[in-house]
Amino acid sequence: MNKVAITAYGNTKFSKEEIPIETLMLNATKSLFDQNPNLSQKDIDTVLVSTNDNSKYLAAIISELSGIEPRISHTVESLCNSGTNSIVSAYSYIASGLGDVALVIGAERRDSPGQTLEWDVSRGEYKHPIFWGSIFTKAHKRKFNTTEEDLAIVSAKNHHNAEYNPYAYSNKVYSIDELMNSKILTEDLKVSDCSRPCSGSSAVLLSSEKMAPKISESPVWIKGIGQRTLSAGFTKNQDFSSMASTIDASKIAFDQAKLTPNDVDVVEIHDAFTVCELMALEGIGFSKKGQGKQFVKTLYETENKKINPRGGLIGAGHPLGATGIAQVIETTQQLQGKAEKRQIENAHVGLVHNMSAAATSSTVLLLES
Amino acid sequence: MNKVAITAYGNTKFSKEEIPIETLMLNATKSLFDQNPNLSQKDIDTVLVSTNDNSKYLAAIISELSGIEPRISHTVESLCNSGTNSIVSAYSYIASGLGDVALVIGAERRDSPGQTLEWDVSRGEYKHPIFWGSIFTKAHKRKFNTTEEDLAIVSAKNHHNAEYNPYAYSNKVYSIDELMNSKILTEDLKVSDCSRPCSGSSAVLLSSEKMAPKISESPVWIKGIGQRTLSAGFTKNQDFSSMASTIDASKIAFDQAKLTPNDVDVVEIHDAFTVCELMALEGIGFSKKGQGKQFVKTLYETENKKINPRGGLIGAGHPLGATGIAQVIETTQQLQGKAEKRQIENAHVGLVHNMSAAATSSTVLLLES
Repeated sequence: MNKVAITAYGNTKFSKEEIPIETLMLNATKSLFDQNPNLSQKDIDTVLVSTNDNSKYLAAIISELSGIEPRISHTVESLCNSGTNSIVSAYSYIASGLGDVALVIGAERRDSPGQTLEWDVSRGEYKHPIFWGSIFTKAHKRKFNTTEEDLAIVSAKNHHNAEYNPYAYSNKVYSIDELMNSKILTEDLKVSDCSRPCSGSSAVLLSSEKMAPKISESPVWIKGIGQRTLSAGFTKNQDFSSMASTIDASKIAFDQAKLTPNDVDVVEIHDAFTVCELMALEGIGFSKKGQGKQFVKTLYETENKKINPRGGLIGAGHPLGATGIAQVIETTQQLQGKAEKRQIENAHVGLVHNMSAAATSSTVLLLES
Repeated sequence: MNKVAITAYGNTKFSKEEIPIETLMLNATKSLFDQNPNLSQKDIDTVLVSTNDNSKYLAAIISELSGIEPRISHTVESLCNSGTNSIVSAYSYIASGLGDVALVIGAERRDSPGQTLEWDVSRGEYKHPIFWGSIFTKAHKRKFNTTEEDLAIVSAKNHHNAEYNPYAYSNKVYSIDELMNSKILTEDLKVSDCSRPCSGSSAVLLSSEKMAPKISESPVWIKGIGQRTLSAGFTKNQDFSSMASTIDASKIAFDQAKLTPNDVDVVEIHDAFTVCELMALEGIGFSKKGQGKQFVKTLYETENKKINPRGGLIGAGHPLGATGIAQVIETTQQLQGKAEKRQIENAHVGLVHNMSAAATSSTVLLLES
């Protein structure tokens, strides 16, 4: 099986602006080409688009707009983890020998239809993620005595980390007091506990072992891939204080990579809501169950950026189809030592956690420089 | 690289009925399981959905509805060749070693938003495929003196072939005279020249070499995969009397499989319009340029079902996301000798041609028993 590396990337700023989906995709793609003047459109044989946008045939459209005539082109959709699903697809095209160089473009408009799951009425009358975010938060509070302040610390840390992310929705830093006084949305959630939908695009290039050194001086290799899809409804028995698909996906990824949580230097967590960061850290094995909050508090107090160095979804914004791609780009930059003021020292192994719909499905990727 | 086989399938009838997309998917999946009592939900590690429907997260939803907890799940969209794109994705997941058994479900409602390409205004004021269908037809008539009767023969042959397809939109047989008197839509197209949008679903199972014999006594192997995406607009220089992406894709597929058109026993062609069948037969190499019409006339007069034995899109209907899957199922049944009254004698090699948006992108697959 062919080895596969991340070899190039480009981002747009995440913002609340209304920008056409084609413009978003093109801007991220242009940024990728601008940073890699040796890369030619002719090198690219696969173009995948990750989005929840209702526009059709976007992979063929961005191919035309950017002068690429790929073999393989299509859109991948899986709500909030569309991004890592498309990266895993690109990986498999290269690993199986069908392609050598894949451009994967995640893009979303702030008014994305992927922000609700119409199908499952058991998720709540209003079908908005805030319903399951509240259920998860209440369950974690009950089981582990998690407090509003514990959650505010997650938000404060991630906003603090986003200060030096040039693509973040906002670079503003908040005190814990400010966040504790943020607008109350439900009994268990404040505005500061929630990631913000926004417009944005991120593009990444995957390459075979043969092509990688021609494109990048410091390729970052995909070493582990874990995925799991469980119940797309709340009607089955479920423990709302942990995320079973994340636990499964991380086991699969660590097994494939022959690595453990102790080997990981830098981590992107899918903090759709503050409680999700605690649950993911506990599920993946960075802390024991219920102890994620102490772990995060220590990181915050010591200004350690190991977890969500670009600010997570809460700090950087959450343009659904772009999020998984942006997570992989940040991890790649960290492992290349190119993360500037966000840089973790001596980072060699990175983990990306991306999930959808109350962790109905999760992806965990392990990258190594 | 792991070998990959088609090992199971299930269809719904294609119809004009308004049926929820989840019901369509579930009915095709149930049919697949009913025909393979030894197959367990636990065997399946990948679930892909092929559709243009605007509903999100359908792969997770059909997984829950059918009791599957896969690793990989997402939707693949590429307008009319979403079906073969999802099959190629499933192939690459297995060939790369990420999975062993993939369920691929194509489904579409008759009111699918994939029936127009909103993006490209150069395709015509009304954005309907009939605009490019007319351009293609006029170009082929001018260049090769193709007549209305030549086109009516394509339609007559495909309706005749659909007579014994239990899943076809209609089993009605038409005389050439009847088709020549069909309602005129544009200067160059009649109703009888067009495939019909409809509701329908087709599901197929792909398996690794290790798993294939456990599921099927007569697995059909994927031997060649060719894909090409060209211009998603009519603004560039284009020859409207041939389909460049189809020519490219078939060359790639034949090269990979080390086969030639002479080796092929049974063929599924994407006859979105009658002229597309002629252009595809000429592009793939089953006849010389401009001579597709004589080839089809001979098939019709000798009642030879080699090309589009299930009736093509014109005879069987065209539920966009399901079409590529239904083509692969028909070819699999032919190569297994299970096509009943539609059976081609001694069929060992089959070809599937599936395309999108005026052949902006094409897929060609070669299957072997």
